[in-house]
Amino acid sequence: MFRFTTAGESHGRALVAIVEGLPAGLPVNVDQINHELWRRQQGYGRGGRMKIEQDRVEILSGVRHGLTLGSPLTLMIENKDWANWNEVMAIGPTELAPEKARRVKRPRPGHADLAGGLKYDVRDLRNVLERASARETTARVACGALAKQLLGNFGLEIRSHVIQLGGIPEKPLELTFDQIAAIPEDAPLRCADPEIQQRMIDRIDQTKREGDTLGGIFEVVARGVIPGLGSHTSWDSKLDGRLAQAIMSIHAVKAVAIGAGVEASSLPG
Amino acid sequence: MFRFTTAGESHGRALVAIVEGLPAGLPVNVDQINHELWRRQQGYGRGGRMKIEQDRVEILSGVRHGLTLGSPLTLMIENKDWANWNEVMAIGPTELAPEKARRVKRPRPGHADLAGGLKYDVRDLRNVLERASARETTARVACGALAKQLLGNFGLEIRSHVIQLGGIPEKPLELTFDQIAAIPEDAPLRCADPEIQQRMIDRIDQTKREGDTLGGIFEVVARGVIPGLGSHTSWDSKLDGRLAQAIMSIHAVKAVAIGAGVEASSLPG
Amino acid sequence: MFRFTTAGESHGRALVAIVEGLPAGLPVNVDQINHELWRRQQGYGRGGRMKIEQDRVEILSGVRHGLTLGSPLTLMIENKDWANWNEVMAIGPTELAPEKARRVKRPRPGHADLAGGLKYDVRDLRNVLERASARETTARVACGALAKQLLGNFGLEIRSHVIQLGGIPEKPLELTFDQIAAIPEDAPLRCADPEIQQRMIDRIDQTKREGDTLGGIFEVVARGVIPGLGSHTSWDSKLDGRLAQAIMSIHAVKAVAIGAGVEASSLPG
Amino acid sequence: MFRFTTAGESHGRALVAIVEGLPAGLPVNVDQINHELWRRQQGYGRGGRMKIEQDRVEILSGVRHGLTLGSPLTLMIENKDWANWNEVMAIGPTELAPEKARRVKRPRPGHADLAGGLKYDVRDLRNVLERASARETTARVACGALAKQLLGNFGLEIRSHVIQLGGIPEKPLELTFDQIAAIPEDAPLRCADPEIQQRMIDRIDQTKREGDTLGGIFEVVARGVIPGLGSHTSWDSKLDGRLAQAIMSIHAVKAVAIGAGVEASSLPG
Repeated sequence: MFRFTTAGESHGRALVAIVEGLPAGLPVNVDQINHELWRRQQGYGRGGRMKIEQDRVEILSGVRHGLTLGSPLTLMIENKDWANWNEVMAIGPTELAPEKARRVKRPRPGHADLAGGLKYDVRDLRNVLERASARETTARVACGALAKQLLGNFGLEIRSHVIQLGGIPEKPLELTFDQIAAIPEDAPLRCADPEIQQRMIDRIDQTKREGDTLGGIFEVVARGVIPGLGSHTSWDSKLDGRLAQAIMSIHAVKAVAIGAGVEASSLPG
Repeated sequence: MFRFTTAGESHGRALVAIVEGLPAGLPVNVDQINHELWRRQQGYGRGGRMKIEQDRVEILSGVRHGLTLGSPLTLMIENKDWANWNEVMAIGPTELAPEKARRVKRPRPGHADLAGGLKYDVRDLRNVLERASARETTARVACGALAKQLLGNFGLEIRSHVIQLGGIPEKPLELTFDQIAAIPEDAPLRCADPEIQQRMIDRIDQTKREGDTLGGIFEVVARGVIPGLGSHTSWDSKLDGRLAQAIMSIHAVKAVAIGAGVEASSLPG
Repeated sequence: MFRFTTAGESHGRALVAIVEGLPAGLPVNVDQINHELWRRQQGYGRGGRMKIEQDRVEILSGVRHGLTLGSPLTLMIENKDWANWNEVMAIGPTELAPEKARRVKRPRPGHADLAGGLKYDVRDLRNVLERASARETTARVACGALAKQLLGNFGLEIRSHVIQLGGIPEKPLELTFDQIAAIPEDAPLRCADPEIQQRMIDRIDQTKREGDTLGGIFEVVARGVIPGLGSHTSWDSKLDGRLAQAIMSIHAVKAVAIGAGVEASSLPG
Repeated sequence: MFRFTTAGESHGRALVAIVEGLPAGLPVNVDQINHELWRRQQGYGRGGRMKIEQDRVEILSGVRHGLTLGSPLTLMIENKDWANWNEVMAIGPTELAPEKARRVKRPRPGHADLAGGLKYDVRDLRNVLERASARETTARVACGALAKQLLGNFGLEIRSHVIQLGGIPEKPLELTFDQIAAIPEDAPLRCADPEIQQRMIDRIDQTKREGDTLGGIFEVVARGVIPGLGSHTSWDSKLDGRLAQAIMSIHAVKAVAIGAGVEASSLPG
């Protein structure tokens, strides 16, 4: 059973994942994992930190001479700015002057701060937000890259793109797999239509000037899906449900649709 | 850890669930479970079988004198029409005349038939569809009723209603918790607005005459949610993701949204 | 992944198990499951209840026409004396006269009564002992019978026998697989040597007269074990550890050895 | 739920564990973890490698200012001789001259080599033995040190000692908790009786000269055990079974006993 467990705080020393259940003998391409990490850091309008990190994976276990061993893989992505945070986030007991402690006392709406602070009974909400941060997805991207390599061996291809951002275009884009696959890797918003992309960029610039952020919709498509992934035999092994969990557990994602999705609600058939 | 495992075929002898992780001493109201099973069988336009079954739960373990024991609960819902199916679905080896076997050889699009047939290597797709059937949700409703009783002890209330059906009304209804709670239990579509409900019913009647079916949108709302359900510490314990899996694994559900949902995609903030 | 979940109280309505992870198309022999249940009830010197129960399994799901479906199996073994206990163990709220309630207030040493009573905060320790009872192994025997049928398809055979009881013989028996396999099914203690068996019986009779019970050692042997069961890759998938857990979790078992076992402790090599 | 997942090859870059389910706010004493790692490396007659490694844990996540965060802890123990193995165990694709590759082609009896080689379909059994090695217990010792710190907060104390080695003394030692607790940390065999310990050492020396190894028995005792660890409600949550799995999954352990253990087999009561 493929299973991955992630660990690591946003400004801690490293993000780590242990990946179990990959078959033995699978070729592992580290460059491709790093490429996926690079992709995660792109996207027009992202915060400055994205540029600092330049994430790189190190494999600590489970791979030998380029092939999986069948044993658990450890993936580690060191936080490049750890040097700036090793007091605030020190592992050992520390006495920090209050002005250096970067304590977070006021829960931010829409974040896990309040619920986490109550659940884990902490006053410094940094103890919550460091783990609740979207930086955790870095580890997941690395695990996902391995899954992609496994599935790629069976001819399964996965692509993604942005189909709407801040309401642009009015109707989300509908493209073929080949059109999506043709989007250049350096497209600033991974949008297939350069003209629409420019309008999205303008909207981002404007929203930024207003001190705000914007929502959007991305689509993930797969070609060559092998029949038999997931199973109908138990509610928690159904593929749709597992995909929905995986996507909805990404920070800031508020909706997931499969196939016709929401539109199916007004369609016959 | 609350965990439930379901079993049972659509035309088999019974649907069964084992529920683990409920605390000891929780009052269990069997009538309320049966009421939820009844609710599941309502809904204008449902197939005829709904009327046959009149599901009733029997508790086989885990409850004594109306209180949970801390040990696993077994919930059993017998299939009322088992007598008509005990040959087709016989547990023991059987030689059935082909005209009696109700074999399913042609996979139905949009169902698990094809993927399941390939995965489990069976020719009679009844072996797939009997378990893949939405009747499995009967067991889940019973488990959910227990969860509701547990949460109810902490003041958490859950309600649901239909906010759009076949595109009626044009914009999904937006109601307060109290408005939703006021919907009569016997409202044929559990829609708060009788006039809109009638239009939905007319649309269903018309679509039925055309030999088709219709999609819709339902909303589930909770009041008094206890902070600390789920956790930010692991991707697979996040509440949003777990809810999305639970909902998306229901048959025919194609999209899940939380809070502002899809609309968040075009909003700032 | 083969996984089984059991439920049911000793004097409740039924013992139940859900078995997941069996492959589709496996022939299921109900008689053989019942035979294993019969074997569980044999053994010279057992309490009277063993004769009352005559356990029989009913399969409620997961099997059709004698073959597994790939979906979860439900096994149910009804408690034959439920009629005598349906007040004491009633599911619903009940007002029982104290003399009928069979409350257990004094924790019995060597049982789960005290720990369970503290953990689940109950005064009537019947709420603990009903689930902690060794009767739970009935459900496990039924699950094990399925596992045996699965493994039997690959040529794996399993036998067991008693090799010492109350210190008789002085050194536990050491026999070949064929000698063990030749023990008659109705041997009262499943001991290969009739003369030794008689001495064991005499010792049991004598101990019973003294109002006491006796310990013993049984051996389980397998022939034709398929390489690759379990895995070295994770501490909790190692076969030795999993077997040890399965055996040690049987009531009253206090030691488990594999291969040379305890003797290995004084051997070189 | 306390859960730990380990990873890492014997001559790989590092051993790693992710520990989930520790409560937030637990003080973590890194020195104590390192002390347990040191203890693991002691023991008269151990191989030379023990002296090379001098294992030290690094915590990469889950702890801040000396307290757990509630999020997963990552423990990393780097292999000190990685520099000597980074070709043989290189992560990336490598062309190694055969004389440098340290391939293992002949399965060693009593090891996972054969079963693992068949299961994972590998010819170079180093791919199996590197993970199957007892060095994996290093990660487990670190996880266990955390568990010990957690339990220590509730007054639970754990001690261990060697009670028989190579048949010396004839009858395993039986000591009180205080006698065991008084064994000096630097006792070469962690045996309470210096005279017996010396005889054990002599036996080891003699066996070593004969090119052989020796078995033994160790005892682990706990004082102040909190009632309610484990549960009687499911076969796989029973404490005895879980302890048996944990111990039996340690390399070379062939028997586990609890309380009176094997002797119970010949005792009345």
